[in-house]
Amino acid sequence: MEGGGEYNRNSSVQAAGMSQAIPLFQHSAERVLLAPAPEPVVIADYGSSEGRNSLASITAAIRALRSRAGPGRAISVVHTDLPNNDFAALFRTLSDSPDSYVRGGAIFPSAIGQSFYEQILPSNSVTLGWSSWAVQWLSRTPAPIPDHVYPDATTDAVTRTAYDNQAADDWRTFLTHRDRELRDGGRLVVMTMASIDDGDFGLRPLMRAMIDVLTGLVKEGFISDDERRLMAIPIVGRRKVDFLAPFAERGQFAKLAVEYAELFVNEDHFWGEFERDHDASNFGARWAAFSRASVSPTLALGLKSRQKERVVEFYNRLEAGITIRLAEAPEPMRVPLVCIVMTKGSVS
Amino acid sequence: MEGGGEYNRNSSVQAAGMSQAIPLFQHSAERVLLAPAPEPVVIADYGSSEGRNSLASITAAIRALRSRAGPGRAISVVHTDLPNNDFAALFRTLSDSPDSYVRGGAIFPSAIGQSFYEQILPSNSVTLGWSSWAVQWLSRTPAPIPDHVYPDATTDAVTRTAYDNQAADDWRTFLTHRDRELRDGGRLVVMTMASIDDGDFGLRPLMRAMIDVLTGLVKEGFISDDERRLMAIPIVGRRKVDFLAPFAERGQFAKLAVEYAELFVNEDHFWGEFERDHDASNFGARWAAFSRASVSPTLALGLKSRQKERVVEFYNRLEAGITIRLAEAPEPMRVPLVCIVMTKGSVS
Repeated sequence: MEGGGEYNRNSSVQAAGMSQAIPLFQHSAERVLLAPAPEPVVIADYGSSEGRNSLASITAAIRALRSRAGPGRAISVVHTDLPNNDFAALFRTLSDSPDSYVRGGAIFPSAIGQSFYEQILPSNSVTLGWSSWAVQWLSRTPAPIPDHVYPDATTDAVTRTAYDNQAADDWRTFLTHRDRELRDGGRLVVMTMASIDDGDFGLRPLMRAMIDVLTGLVKEGFISDDERRLMAIPIVGRRKVDFLAPFAERGQFAKLAVEYAELFVNEDHFWGEFERDHDASNFGARWAAFSRASVSPTLALGLKSRQKERVVEFYNRLEAGITIRLAEAPEPMRVPLVCIVMTKGSVS
Repeated sequence: MEGGGEYNRNSSVQAAGMSQAIPLFQHSAERVLLAPAPEPVVIADYGSSEGRNSLASITAAIRALRSRAGPGRAISVVHTDLPNNDFAALFRTLSDSPDSYVRGGAIFPSAIGQSFYEQILPSNSVTLGWSSWAVQWLSRTPAPIPDHVYPDATTDAVTRTAYDNQAADDWRTFLTHRDRELRDGGRLVVMTMASIDDGDFGLRPLMRAMIDVLTGLVKEGFISDDERRLMAIPIVGRRKVDFLAPFAERGQFAKLAVEYAELFVNEDHFWGEFERDHDASNFGARWAAFSRASVSPTLALGLKSRQKERVVEFYNRLEAGITIRLAEAPEPMRVPLVCIVMTKGSVS
């Protein structure tokens, strides 16, 4: 994360996928087995970033829980992300945003700065889990990517296998820890990037633009070829069958069972704008800003010297280059996403 | 807070006061009524800043709790501070410091970015509360200070009364919310800056140096007289009798009772260094760095234009000026502190 609210300002792509996931989360809140009074009802938000994309889902869940648990019952909302996340921006969003769920009483937000590939909450403590646009990030970069920065775009089979294996391991690790943290009868809703069955992760035009611009930066001598080859974005789009694999043998994984799993392709609303206003350069700029906020800091890890000025210049050049590339030949981006609802133990 | 770990690096004055408070906190952990299994035992750290000064106290408490509650029992540690605190530095400290208490299993740190002058944790949820070097900060600046930046140094009676009243209100507010958050049988240990009975808040040489340097910056034209007069540090040193006042009438406040309250004067270990090495300029630099980390950002709020370069220049000039002033005539600083141990409800 670049921090300073950069992610909050440029996360409207992520927000768009919510219209599918939020009703599922609300439905879960309406049916989940509540922790017995007077224990607080704990909602965990795994991979919250700076918080803006969590507000609507948490608000919907709180509304449902509040009507079931009564006005005085404490509801704890725990936002988790990596230690270097901009938590100050998260807390400002919670206190200042007009859409904040922190209205009325007995709502207690907090944050955990630790990877969700570990157990980060007490066992049997979470009533409702939510994770949106987070699980596509692997726990680590398992291998350099010789011919690209996105594992889904590589043509190298060994590299591809390394990322597929890491993706399978990480998904099991994620489920293992969530299973521990959830209470019996608790529910977990995951919305994340996916691939359609032929392996298409979507975002092809953006991925092409990015590698073209990076190759150009090498030619110009702004970055070295070595630096380019150290850049890898450990994001994967798993297929629906990959998400379901851990559950295949026994119908559940630990005590988790899948209640619902659907893949859908997110509408490209920047494309919708473009069809209305024919402003190609705005179309390019919107996707470039999305890309800057979500993956530029990860690319910058490949830079061998990372003085602040150089990093900012790198972000600026990458964003400007992607804007131009996409504006030259606008085409809609497919963003395949998956929504999965899981329950722990007996289903009510 | 200036952030970026600035506070962590320059908080050794605060660390020194801990030798009095940590044994009290450990003693509390040994005797406190534990939440019934399997509920997590919750430790709250009110005003944690970037975390370094919390490690030793939390470690001592966890050791005592662990031996009482057994190896598998979840212990949650909740660090609270204002929303703009550098929580990323806090989480890095917890994950990377060799002194971190996050060793072994079943320990779950989290953070809350909200003022402790509100209820920020569920009612009846906290087993052990800790607050060090935090309660001296008022909830707001009740009035400008015409002749100084420290309320304890003003000669203006009306101003002084405004701060005294705010200090009394804030202490009651703090206690009211902690009383709600603590479980019955829970304990709260507060260590904070104080005044000895004649009203001496200590730090007189530092306060003199600071106002002299600020006056100099006005003369040089680096800051305006208006800006200087907008600078106020809402820190107070309450007397022991002020801390005890809310309990005076009934022997308790809400369900809180005072088990222990002592005032002590902290040894100036920078002065100890100076007596050994006679390095006056190091002596000045150490106190100036302490001052920069703890109060410079508050002073900077008085600046009308706050471009980053100007603010950093302001910090640098203030720190350099204070270093020189203190080095000219080194004298030991008295830092009166108070330790208070409170219990909620029936004492075990």
